[in-house]
Amino acid sequence: MAKELKELTKREVNYSQWYNDLVIKADLAEQSAVRGCMVIKPYGYAIWEKMQQQLDKMFKETGHVNAYFPLLIPKSFLSREADHVEGFAKECAVVTHYRLKNSTEGKGVVVDPEAKLEEELIIRPTSETIIWNTYKNWIQSHRDLPILCNQWANVLRWEMRTRMFLRTAEFLWQEGHTAHATKEEALEEAVKMLNVYAEFAEKYMAVPVIKGVKSANERFAGALDTYTIEAMMQDGKALQSGTSHFLGQNFAKAFDVKFLNKNNELEYVWATSWGVSTRLMGALIMTHSDDNGLVLPPQLAPIQVVIVPIYKNAEQLDLISKTIEPIVAELKQYGISVKYDDADNKRPGFKFAEYELKGVPVRLAIGARDIENGTIEVMRRDKLEKSVEQLEGISSFVKKLLDDIQENIFAKALAHREAKTIQVDTYEDFKEKIEEGGFILAHWDGTPETEDKIKEETKATIRCIPLDGDKTPGKCMVTGKPSKQRVIFARSY
Amino acid sequence: MAKELKELTKREVNYSQWYNDLVIKADLAEQSAVRGCMVIKPYGYAIWEKMQQQLDKMFKETGHVNAYFPLLIPKSFLSREADHVEGFAKECAVVTHYRLKNSTEGKGVVVDPEAKLEEELIIRPTSETIIWNTYKNWIQSHRDLPILCNQWANVLRWEMRTRMFLRTAEFLWQEGHTAHATKEEALEEAVKMLNVYAEFAEKYMAVPVIKGVKSANERFAGALDTYTIEAMMQDGKALQSGTSHFLGQNFAKAFDVKFLNKNNELEYVWATSWGVSTRLMGALIMTHSDDNGLVLPPQLAPIQVVIVPIYKNAEQLDLISKTIEPIVAELKQYGISVKYDDADNKRPGFKFAEYELKGVPVRLAIGARDIENGTIEVMRRDKLEKSVEQLEGISSFVKKLLDDIQENIFAKALAHREAKTIQVDTYEDFKEKIEEGGFILAHWDGTPETEDKIKEETKATIRCIPLDGDKTPGKCMVTGKPSKQRVIFARSY
Repeated sequence: MAKELKELTKREVNYSQWYNDLVIKADLAEQSAVRGCMVIKPYGYAIWEKMQQQLDKMFKETGHVNAYFPLLIPKSFLSREADHVEGFAKECAVVTHYRLKNSTEGKGVVVDPEAKLEEELIIRPTSETIIWNTYKNWIQSHRDLPILCNQWANVLRWEMRTRMFLRTAEFLWQEGHTAHATKEEALEEAVKMLNVYAEFAEKYMAVPVIKGVKSANERFAGALDTYTIEAMMQDGKALQSGTSHFLGQNFAKAFDVKFLNKNNELEYVWATSWGVSTRLMGALIMTHSDDNGLVLPPQLAPIQVVIVPIYKNAEQLDLISKTIEPIVAELKQYGISVKYDDADNKRPGFKFAEYELKGVPVRLAIGARDIENGTIEVMRRDKLEKSVEQLEGISSFVKKLLDDIQENIFAKALAHREAKTIQVDTYEDFKEKIEEGGFILAHWDGTPETEDKIKEETKATIRCIPLDGDKTPGKCMVTGKPSKQRVIFARSY
Repeated sequence: MAKELKELTKREVNYSQWYNDLVIKADLAEQSAVRGCMVIKPYGYAIWEKMQQQLDKMFKETGHVNAYFPLLIPKSFLSREADHVEGFAKECAVVTHYRLKNSTEGKGVVVDPEAKLEEELIIRPTSETIIWNTYKNWIQSHRDLPILCNQWANVLRWEMRTRMFLRTAEFLWQEGHTAHATKEEALEEAVKMLNVYAEFAEKYMAVPVIKGVKSANERFAGALDTYTIEAMMQDGKALQSGTSHFLGQNFAKAFDVKFLNKNNELEYVWATSWGVSTRLMGALIMTHSDDNGLVLPPQLAPIQVVIVPIYKNAEQLDLISKTIEPIVAELKQYGISVKYDDADNKRPGFKFAEYELKGVPVRLAIGARDIENGTIEVMRRDKLEKSVEQLEGISSFVKKLLDDIQENIFAKALAHREAKTIQVDTYEDFKEKIEEGGFILAHWDGTPETEDKIKEETKATIRCIPLDGDKTPGKCMVTGKPSKQRVIFARSY
């Protein structure tokens, strides 16, 4: 086994360290010189690009268009919506000056005090305010609605404790911002985009998610309702993976955005916003990977198949290369991304370990004797199982195998979540079970006070009030007051 | 003609106003609430997306990968390379604080003085410094080279005079940053990417460009050589449309990036950087458009073909729609993006004007009598010429027409540039001819002093020292000193 792999901490030893090791060793990202900001390395970025492409396609299929709004937001815009400013003011990077000048002491540059901005600008932590200030000019009548815009952008929140992909000061994301003539239409949009996120998570990331509504404590600052998809990581913790907000008329009121409805009456516009970010990379890594490295779903793997030749001399390599050439062409015709790694400065064992670490779903290895026998060795990354297959028809075999891997890792993650999801009826039981990790379905009286108490005493929060499943009422495990349905508690990232 | 079109200033009346009008009326972009920052509207962004996709494909085909580096750069990084800081310090947005708090006067939020950064951060005006600080950790040996990274990102330069797309404080761009073991390889890379830009400009944007080298005055801050593609706008002014820099070992020295070469000696790494930005949108608009609105090259048009039904009643519309259906399907099979606009709240004349304004290359119009006759009306946007064509085979006719339009607008722009490019031998002549706009090929002694004098007296600068064409030496038109070859002078954006 290659040296690098030995240094990957095992999950059972320290799950958190395993994650950090893996992000670095698999060349996904690294810390930058700027506190809390990461560098997304080419291999990590290639996975993010595949996510982007698929999401962008799904947004366009549901009628959305892309646009771009400014990075900087006048400070006063933030104050317009009371909850919004409360939620974001404490983590804003503030631009106060627009020029540097040479230091009079002759060392480097200093901020030019004469270039002070009249009004400070903040780097967007999210763009509701600047966008609704823009929409004001776009909307006069019901004929201007709906507006269905999305933006791919970087945003910045000055977080105190950061972890690569999961919580970084700067992160990449998309933020959809829609404007509607009716409450019903806005609510429908918020749920529609939640479903798009859930479909993306399950079909492409192979990450099972629970769709639900956030409690008031966990709601987006400025939203009337926040819908969420929640995933369970291998350590039993929850990861909020995407949110879709019904904003009501809050931002329309804050920025005075009215329209003439069909009855010729002026009315405030209804809004939604929804976003997923590079945090999804964290969900992807933590859901499937193992002690040998990344496990990537074929749908998002930058390299889906790698072929490694095993040879003793140039003649053998030549023979293998000629045999492989039509197979590579066939795989590409199936739309499969394939790499033939005939680099001669690394031994096959080293290559095997490297591609395992990087989560390439299928590895083919072929030597001179294989060619004599008309066979090829196939290794599937998810199960780390090897088999010897017939060379003839190998392309369609691999195609089916990729589908099988995609299904298998989803099924595995789902089985894990189901095994770690329990129902609890007493707070005593809850306090004991929460230590084991996982999702706990329990009754809650619907008050922020009770949620606060539970959080303080157990570090668990309500991840969501599930949209699907059991809706039987009951009694709050803490106060005994009535509960409409069980909600999901967990410790979370 | 629709009301909006009447308000588009004619080019001959005021070219600059025509451009500003067009950007607004064609729904490409608008000013935002933040000084110098624009909102790129969905239609403008759709064109930019098509540019991005094609460029990204060309970068990947030439072996490059994407990555992402932080938005913020420690102030001290900028000072490490002397020319670089000189070039960018005066236009940097500076982040000094990381938190807002409620105003004690109870009105909105103020900057929290306790959240002052120890070292100020600047918003990247370009990323050489943060990237070379990162590359230091990626490079030890010649085996780690080359590094061929590109980044799609937003950057910010606090420009005093801004114009939408052409010069905005924040803009979107891509910046390639490559690291090489030898000078020759870095030079080759810089020229290779210049050629990629030129190919993109000519084949996709249909904008003819002159490839050349910048004089010292116009060089990128920190580069040893800046290669450029220069385009001529309809008013005869030059627009620098893309640059590729040979950075020598400047940034490697500034950030102490060395590698062990094949002889086991430590050596500084060689570098290039190259970029194109949303400024290309300005080049695209100003090269082809006319007094009726945008003219888009088919290769970059979000909608390539629009079909407008002309009908008197539901029955006729139904008949037209049924006739059009298989044609839409055929066009899509050719990979052509087509919109069938059967909206009933706008009259055909209004639709015609709107699609002309938005530069849709081909418009098809069809009524009940056309169907009887087996014909369809075709309008090509570039020449504003209508013709009646046979319905049968219309898809392949349109396909060829799109190719023809792409070629025609390139040829037209090229003819315009050639007509407005002259040779001049005396400074007196130069001063007269420069008033007429266009490119002037003249001899220059190679000194910054002479270029400064010419700029001061005529507002013209050296756009580039052309790589191709006449290399006959001569005498500087100003000083009479020896000149190696004619260079291109022009007034520019």
